[in-house]
Amino acid sequence: MSESRALASLGDMPAAELRAELHRMAELVADYRESIAARAISPTVAPGDVTAGLGSSMPDEPAPMAAIRADLDAVVMPGIVHWGHPAFLGYFGSTSNGPALLGEIAAAALNVSAMTWRTSPAATELETVVLRWIRELVGLPTSFTGIVYDTASIGVLHALAAAREQVAPGVRGRGIAGRDDVPVLRVYASEQAHSSLEKAMIVLGLGEENAVRVRTDDRFRLDVESLREAIADDRRRGYRPLAVIATVGTTSSASVDPVPAIMDLCERERIWLHVDAAYGGAMAVLPEGRVVMDGVERADSVVINPHKWLFVPLDFSALYTRHPESLRAVFALTPEYLRGDAAGEDGGAAIDYMDYGIQLGRRFRALKAWMVLRAFGRSGIESRLREHVRLAGVLAAMVEGEPGFALVVRPSMSVVCFHYRGAGADDATNDWLNEAIVEAVNRSGVAYLTHTRLRGRLVMRVGFGNVLTTEEHVRTLWATVVESSNLLVQSLPRPRPCPIAGPNDSGSSAMGKARAT
Amino acid sequence: MSESRALASLGDMPAAELRAELHRMAELVADYRESIAARAISPTVAPGDVTAGLGSSMPDEPAPMAAIRADLDAVVMPGIVHWGHPAFLGYFGSTSNGPALLGEIAAAALNVSAMTWRTSPAATELETVVLRWIRELVGLPTSFTGIVYDTASIGVLHALAAAREQVAPGVRGRGIAGRDDVPVLRVYASEQAHSSLEKAMIVLGLGEENAVRVRTDDRFRLDVESLREAIADDRRRGYRPLAVIATVGTTSSASVDPVPAIMDLCERERIWLHVDAAYGGAMAVLPEGRVVMDGVERADSVVINPHKWLFVPLDFSALYTRHPESLRAVFALTPEYLRGDAAGEDGGAAIDYMDYGIQLGRRFRALKAWMVLRAFGRSGIESRLREHVRLAGVLAAMVEGEPGFALVVRPSMSVVCFHYRGAGADDATNDWLNEAIVEAVNRSGVAYLTHTRLRGRLVMRVGFGNVLTTEEHVRTLWATVVESSNLLVQSLPRPRPCPIAGPNDSGSSAMGKARAT
Repeated sequence: MSESRALASLGDMPAAELRAELHRMAELVADYRESIAARAISPTVAPGDVTAGLGSSMPDEPAPMAAIRADLDAVVMPGIVHWGHPAFLGYFGSTSNGPALLGEIAAAALNVSAMTWRTSPAATELETVVLRWIRELVGLPTSFTGIVYDTASIGVLHALAAAREQVAPGVRGRGIAGRDDVPVLRVYASEQAHSSLEKAMIVLGLGEENAVRVRTDDRFRLDVESLREAIADDRRRGYRPLAVIATVGTTSSASVDPVPAIMDLCERERIWLHVDAAYGGAMAVLPEGRVVMDGVERADSVVINPHKWLFVPLDFSALYTRHPESLRAVFALTPEYLRGDAAGEDGGAAIDYMDYGIQLGRRFRALKAWMVLRAFGRSGIESRLREHVRLAGVLAAMVEGEPGFALVVRPSMSVVCFHYRGAGADDATNDWLNEAIVEAVNRSGVAYLTHTRLRGRLVMRVGFGNVLTTEEHVRTLWATVVESSNLLVQSLPRPRPCPIAGPNDSGSSAMGKARAT
Repeated sequence: MSESRALASLGDMPAAELRAELHRMAELVADYRESIAARAISPTVAPGDVTAGLGSSMPDEPAPMAAIRADLDAVVMPGIVHWGHPAFLGYFGSTSNGPALLGEIAAAALNVSAMTWRTSPAATELETVVLRWIRELVGLPTSFTGIVYDTASIGVLHALAAAREQVAPGVRGRGIAGRDDVPVLRVYASEQAHSSLEKAMIVLGLGEENAVRVRTDDRFRLDVESLREAIADDRRRGYRPLAVIATVGTTSSASVDPVPAIMDLCERERIWLHVDAAYGGAMAVLPEGRVVMDGVERADSVVINPHKWLFVPLDFSALYTRHPESLRAVFALTPEYLRGDAAGEDGGAAIDYMDYGIQLGRRFRALKAWMVLRAFGRSGIESRLREHVRLAGVLAAMVEGEPGFALVVRPSMSVVCFHYRGAGADDATNDWLNEAIVEAVNRSGVAYLTHTRLRGRLVMRVGFGNVLTTEEHVRTLWATVVESSNLLVQSLPRPRPCPIAGPNDSGSSAMGKARAT
């Protein structure tokens, strides 16, 4: 079978050709992973460049795989940001690795849907097992039951839907409109919490304005006294507190809210506590990091994203709740008496996950996670996490040793926020400089970081999470940051006038309050 | 590097080992695809069997890949339902194929997030291009703009959220509760429409009861006069019609609602029309099937799932809308003036898809779809779709030629619904017999179908969509159905008493109104 032969008009590609293509792809992937550190991280394409190379119309005739591979190489690859590059330190990197990749390939080949237990028992049971392992890893008690969604944004949406039904029974059936027995429901989170809260409030019909942002302390942790006051104020105004979202590892600075005190307040006030530990939950895998999850064992729901800092590629987000039946009560359309016949007789192995969420079609996401957890083991996960914490410390020391730079906050996990303030310029100019440094570093192709805003100032942010990152990459990043800052400062007119345009946040939409994934 | 060597405590697996493992996986996948037709489709495992083989605790130490592969083979594989088997004809099969698999592998290796244009320009632009190609394939005009979500359930949720904001401005900001200016909002769909409507109504705070199910005609098509009456009744009661959902290719029988007449009504009444063409949209790729999309060009939103009948594996669902700015107005948290700096200067290439939906983390789903569309081409997609329609006709002829069996409705796409009524038994016994035949066939391992309910009766349902399925598999299925029915009838006591237990729907939760994915 000639490689250049296009697919016949029926069936799949011939078995021999598929085998050859799979081996060819194995080579491509192995080459990619082996050479990834040598690539320019971010592309130089302009908007529309990739589109222009792809052809404007749906092709009529089959193309041989060789032609498709050639276009992948010539048109698609030049437009890729290499998230897997060891010096890609933006967002929370969802980093790939060998075991994860092998798991994704196996899952793609099987292509089953973990909709119900019956639609593929192994996909459902592996999901349950992996969720138990992750629960064990981060030290959550067995009173929590998990489910895998694609993202933490979908997870918090589900948690708040369950809380909504508890507080306002009958919303599932009758909705909110035209009723005077459904109060305005308010959800509280720190000003540093993730913007998925607002998206959930919008979708749930609760309103973005009813997401109450509470101030934080000098280390960006939710101020419990302010929370208490906000709740009391709202009750006086006739609002009903629905939930509090505490964050373990915020997007901008990895700050950790004081969960035990928040939990005490929620228990007194009988408010659902959702903990967003999407990134920071991983820290609790380390014995020395377990403290970040203190109090979470009493929370009503917790989200942890193994696709952030547990080495599972996109997408894999785990929602745990102590009230799985509340989730099911909101989302199951199958009456109780029609539940899978094995349910209840098997310790829950025959769970139908589609009854606990919006989506029916559910990829076999557990397989890649299982491969990673098995291949790394707890000890391997711990050592990699510990290394990332160490690298954050190394970078922090470099920042502190460099005149003109300062840490915004001492890193406690694997995120480092720092600030250039060496030009003696005004705040607006400093914001401009910090963003310009980020852009210059990213343009260099040798390292990648993002910016965020903390205390109103634009600052630089680095997040470690890639198993390939070494101290050498930290040194490269740092040298590029310093060099870029020097060049930029030299280019400044002296004294530089206050820029008319002000800080330009374009391109920063993914950061700030929004987190990567 | 010994194959049995576990992963070192830092970094990824050594490059040479990853290369070897990728080739080993290439062999496994090639073998799997080559031998898939020879496998027993469904497993014989009991709930808990897979779990029992996996170990109860998170392993402490790294396992060598050889051990993981062995467990994959010994524990996971025996619990897999082989959705890719050519005689797996349940649900809407999301079938894999060579080009799709290669695309998934490449996407997993790149592991980028198509959150914003900047986070990987090629991922965003390829998504836009693929969406244009699919739009062109199914004959939608360029007035529709697409976005890829994971499932149609998420798609309809987004469409209804956009409609909600149009009808009740300010819900995004203020929510629904405590306001007398937000009426009870009603959404209409046929009794055959997908249950994702109810899930969306629940989530959006509109209430499951405000999903109004309208009766269908003798071919399971929405009855427009009943819809008109339902809307008029609701208006009299002070309700506000929000949207109508018309289905092109219902889950149970692939029926097609009369979209042009529904659209006329929606235009007169100024109601958002969402068309669920998740499965049936693919039919419009065929010139002889284009009629199913008549009128859809005037709809407000349409969902098409290439992961159903366009040969793209899970997950890939496309929502098209003529009001992308309405979607953005509901979901974007980035103020307009902070939009990507290239936006508006490039014909929209630099779109930030995260602003059009709930999720930020977005897998590079476009790559697999692009590979399939390129490798098959329009002509290859047409010929495969046409073959599936032909196979449905072949099966329908077999049903009609077999005493005791009858078609429930003449197939118009690739779904065949039929009924065994040969035992001269009462309705309850016939329901039991039809379900028992489905279970017997599925237990046989040589074919797989599902059941559904139509006109109150439990009937058998077959859906074609796998590129590997041939007439031979149809013959195998049919022989197994007939043989199973004969055996079951022989086992009936004569006269058989009315069964006390009645029809047992256990395990059918995924079908009926709910569709596969």
